[in-house]
Amino acid sequence: MSDLPQNQASTTPVLDRVRLPADMKGLSDRELIQLAGELRRETVAAVSETGGHLGAGLGVVELTVALHAVFDAPRDKIIWDVGHQCYPHKILTGRRDRIRTLRMEDGLSGFTKRSESAYDPFGAGHSSTSISAAVGFSTARELGAETGDAIAVIGDGALTGGMAFEALNHGGHLKNRMFVVLNDNEMSIAPPVGALSTYLTRLYSESPLQDLKEVAKGAARAFLPEPFKEGAKRAKEMLKGMAMGGTLFEELGFTYIGPVDGHDLESLLPLLRTLKARARGPVLIHALTKKGKGYAPAESRPDGGHATAKFNLATGEQKKAPSNAPSYTKVFAEALISEAERDEKIVGVTAAMPDGTGLKEFGAHFPRRMFDVGIAEQHAVTFSAGLAASGIKPFCAIYSTFLQRGYDQIVHDVAIQKLPVRFAIDRAGLVGADGATHAGAFDTAFLANLPDFVVMAAGDEAELVHMVATAAAIDDRPSAFRYPRGEGMGVDMPQQGVPLEIGKGRIIQEGVKLAILSYGARLSEVLKASEALRARGIVVTVADARFCKPLDKDMILQLVAEHEAILTIEEGAIGGFASHVQNFLMEEGVFDRGFRLRSMVLPDDFINHASPEKMYQVAGMNAAQIEAKVLEMMDISVAKRA
Amino acid sequence: MSDLPQNQASTTPVLDRVRLPADMKGLSDRELIQLAGELRRETVAAVSETGGHLGAGLGVVELTVALHAVFDAPRDKIIWDVGHQCYPHKILTGRRDRIRTLRMEDGLSGFTKRSESAYDPFGAGHSSTSISAAVGFSTARELGAETGDAIAVIGDGALTGGMAFEALNHGGHLKNRMFVVLNDNEMSIAPPVGALSTYLTRLYSESPLQDLKEVAKGAARAFLPEPFKEGAKRAKEMLKGMAMGGTLFEELGFTYIGPVDGHDLESLLPLLRTLKARARGPVLIHALTKKGKGYAPAESRPDGGHATAKFNLATGEQKKAPSNAPSYTKVFAEALISEAERDEKIVGVTAAMPDGTGLKEFGAHFPRRMFDVGIAEQHAVTFSAGLAASGIKPFCAIYSTFLQRGYDQIVHDVAIQKLPVRFAIDRAGLVGADGATHAGAFDTAFLANLPDFVVMAAGDEAELVHMVATAAAIDDRPSAFRYPRGEGMGVDMPQQGVPLEIGKGRIIQEGVKLAILSYGARLSEVLKASEALRARGIVVTVADARFCKPLDKDMILQLVAEHEAILTIEEGAIGGFASHVQNFLMEEGVFDRGFRLRSMVLPDDFINHASPEKMYQVAGMNAAQIEAKVLEMMDISVAKRA
Repeated sequence: MSDLPQNQASTTPVLDRVRLPADMKGLSDRELIQLAGELRRETVAAVSETGGHLGAGLGVVELTVALHAVFDAPRDKIIWDVGHQCYPHKILTGRRDRIRTLRMEDGLSGFTKRSESAYDPFGAGHSSTSISAAVGFSTARELGAETGDAIAVIGDGALTGGMAFEALNHGGHLKNRMFVVLNDNEMSIAPPVGALSTYLTRLYSESPLQDLKEVAKGAARAFLPEPFKEGAKRAKEMLKGMAMGGTLFEELGFTYIGPVDGHDLESLLPLLRTLKARARGPVLIHALTKKGKGYAPAESRPDGGHATAKFNLATGEQKKAPSNAPSYTKVFAEALISEAERDEKIVGVTAAMPDGTGLKEFGAHFPRRMFDVGIAEQHAVTFSAGLAASGIKPFCAIYSTFLQRGYDQIVHDVAIQKLPVRFAIDRAGLVGADGATHAGAFDTAFLANLPDFVVMAAGDEAELVHMVATAAAIDDRPSAFRYPRGEGMGVDMPQQGVPLEIGKGRIIQEGVKLAILSYGARLSEVLKASEALRARGIVVTVADARFCKPLDKDMILQLVAEHEAILTIEEGAIGGFASHVQNFLMEEGVFDRGFRLRSMVLPDDFINHASPEKMYQVAGMNAAQIEAKVLEMMDISVAKRA
Repeated sequence: MSDLPQNQASTTPVLDRVRLPADMKGLSDRELIQLAGELRRETVAAVSETGGHLGAGLGVVELTVALHAVFDAPRDKIIWDVGHQCYPHKILTGRRDRIRTLRMEDGLSGFTKRSESAYDPFGAGHSSTSISAAVGFSTARELGAETGDAIAVIGDGALTGGMAFEALNHGGHLKNRMFVVLNDNEMSIAPPVGALSTYLTRLYSESPLQDLKEVAKGAARAFLPEPFKEGAKRAKEMLKGMAMGGTLFEELGFTYIGPVDGHDLESLLPLLRTLKARARGPVLIHALTKKGKGYAPAESRPDGGHATAKFNLATGEQKKAPSNAPSYTKVFAEALISEAERDEKIVGVTAAMPDGTGLKEFGAHFPRRMFDVGIAEQHAVTFSAGLAASGIKPFCAIYSTFLQRGYDQIVHDVAIQKLPVRFAIDRAGLVGADGATHAGAFDTAFLANLPDFVVMAAGDEAELVHMVATAAAIDDRPSAFRYPRGEGMGVDMPQQGVPLEIGKGRIIQEGVKLAILSYGARLSEVLKASEALRARGIVVTVADARFCKPLDKDMILQLVAEHEAILTIEEGAIGGFASHVQNFLMEEGVFDRGFRLRSMVLPDDFINHASPEKMYQVAGMNAAQIEAKVLEMMDISVAKRA
């Protein structure tokens, strides 16, 4: 492949023969085992060039080969939960020629995606959805739809998400034939949390790995057709006895098989073949895997090589671009630590993202005051509400896109009760390579219409420090502050955060005729645009709203009074800051007498993955586009501009 | 009490002595048993006058007495899941004198509510939140907060909600002392669904009810302090052996005790006393209760007398006001049945609300095509997405307020994948006696900024029939239509629904100067206001937008061109229809040259329970208020009006 001279013999001879899963049907088990080895090397080689999620894919190489060898995709629906383990699957399903475009503009998505391939029957990105989808597919088949078997592959981390439990409960009730492969690597992104993890560990620590050929025989008998029912029942009991556990899943109506070695194709293949031929009802296969399996630099990392930049194949050393300014995440973590040093009631809550949210660093300082609740945003929110009801000061740090999963809890448990939970919303706006599923587009819209909420966005990293202090000080109602993925602007940092006056924005520079009213971190692009305009002799006012709720009405009316036009901008969808400003000006009668307002919001479209800069280019919200918008609003035609 | 002549001896002598739980501390067990009987009669008598949720409260009378007799509220936090079983609790916690104001304007809430009483440590209304809150309270205590024990009381139905599982997983991991009382009545609102229900049934069918005094002794030994650990461990094993089951909860880290008779105070009292004195770590008490217990008319109803109008105490006969027009719910159900008769791919999905959504009737016609997934909105949405991905046509019928719980799944599994799931959103707008927790205020805002969604609201019940047909016909993207609680306007009904042209509204009446652009079921009030205005010689245009997305831009621009002012109105919060209209007119430059637009939306406040009419009065959106708004917009002063 690409790392070899063209004239050398291919190091992936079996893989070279597999363009689609159908090409695997003629392979012997020995060849399939060889295929797995080649697939693993190809995955590592590809990710070394692209960066991306590595560990999860390496952990499921054998499962991927086994599932595609035994089942018949795309008629059978193999549904990868979260989807970041799908690179080997993509290589085997007609996308090897594009695998080195992973997560790049116009390239393959880093997750499964229905629009990308018929072999991706259900897209993902967020966790814990696969079993629900599989229950849907299997039910559709019961209703006569032309579809094959449904197989959900879900990690032990994703299983802590409540909707996975809801789906098991329903699937066990319906009793449709369907398969859940529990990919148990004792690790999602972070070390495992929760009683379920302890339980799974006990399941396989108390019982030896099964001799899978024996299990397969047992399974064969367990699922014999009706006439042999009596014997089948006995065999099933025997099988259950062998598994010595699995009761939790059995209680929910699933036949439990395992634990099995998820890297042992000699066992996986006969087991899956038997299940495919004979299974009735819902079956859960508990497979033990190792994240990062087979690539030492990944295996040896504490997170199993979860996500990586481009790296050196031989050493595993990552090729990261040097950063100029601290990341917003790091600024948040340090600001929270600083506040927590002065106020012992401050605690941090994360839903399985201690690294991504920066709370890991907080936890290192305050081990008893950091709570990782697992992939369980709903519980994270209401748990925080319970803490707040007891006088504790929780900072619930969740990415914008994942906060969607706690929305009802925010309304019902936090907002209606007016409890002072502080939401630290990382990854607000477009996030780059993770694409549409991870875009933080909606949080301002879904928070700012909740009564009494204080809703903020940081214009730069120093503002973020002050907003942490502001949230800490808001003790009588909920608050939220959003900040983007990536580095700050490199502004001077305060020694310590100072609480902002609630509902007060700031004028950053005074200009004439037109004011740009920025909400959040587009501010850096606004300032660039302003500089470019200045070079044309146009000096605009730039204001940082800071608050979407409560709005700084005085400042906005002042901007109206002193300018001919206002342009608002935010890294969010319609319904957010722009809508609140529009509604306010309308109610004030400003539009009655005529006023030119325009709003730059995220477009009415899910934007495909690319660099954040490119995604904002597509969204029309970069400096040059802001500049063009201002010129257009000032009726300066392109001709005049030249 | 109120049904007795004043001079007769009280029929509630013990209850008369209990104003607050502290007053129960001196009562003997015999008196507590008598108290329970009196409390039950008082509950029935009160609800016979007010209407409300009856069955759930009657099922927990003994649990309520036992918890308050043993624990020390408000320092100890008794958290009632959902909250509709809290009437007996309210009677015992200083609110007996107001119990006959339940669910009435300015009266007691039908749920627990923090602002109402210190004895309601955590409000509710939606399901499955109590364990998360209890984990929060117990953690706060570990952190040094001044708070007592946390006790969550949760039904078997509520336990199917995924967040309850998330909370058990976290609680079992943290190992804080806390209590979960599983109030297992084999029934939430509807017959139980799901494998969990089967499991719970097996738990108590396979093992006899425990002799609770023995269990208590066992528990005493099980929780002895450290020095006796060896013996304690043995005792705990014995206790587990006695319980013969409960493994699911044990696996999650909870000590399981039960099943116990939830109506037997002679057993409940010593058990809870022992647990209060000795328990460490998280404990789950599995109590069997009967919904509607002790009041024959409720017990004999299939739903245990879940919710009731005012009724005759002796017969249980409900005093319902005669209805003039069919309810929107019934119209939806019949329209869906009609569509489903012509299209066998149509199925219905409900999250434990078959009655409330009308899908019960659908299921009676098409038993194999109706799916009740349990209290599991997240799963309901993604299950529907899986069905849609297989070519089935799911109508996912969920109340507006409960749809909040499936929001992330709507974004991630439905909208991003552009799957044609049809959302039938009942109880849109203000709902009356259920109050703020059940208000359907946000659905338009959180759906209409999702790319490609078709978002509709029915102006009257005939429109609803057409919208069901429209949604059935939309096969390439998601759609949603909202309609309110209660009766329609009594309009002529079509024989059969006819799909509407997507994104086209309708002009209902032509007028001059001002147009009212209505979105949804405020239309009836708009028409009343229009009639009142006509009596003043003012003829306004009335338009029904039908679609929030896509907007009928042509119609809106036509209204702008032909009028001096437009008033929009919707039963929803800011961010919805008004915001989309405002943004459109702004982008079109309509405001640049001056135009008078105003929007009536739900106010920025959670409105307390009252009749729907009164709640809309508070919101300022009834006919008289619309009329006043129009006059104000036309610069007709109050003086001129007189």
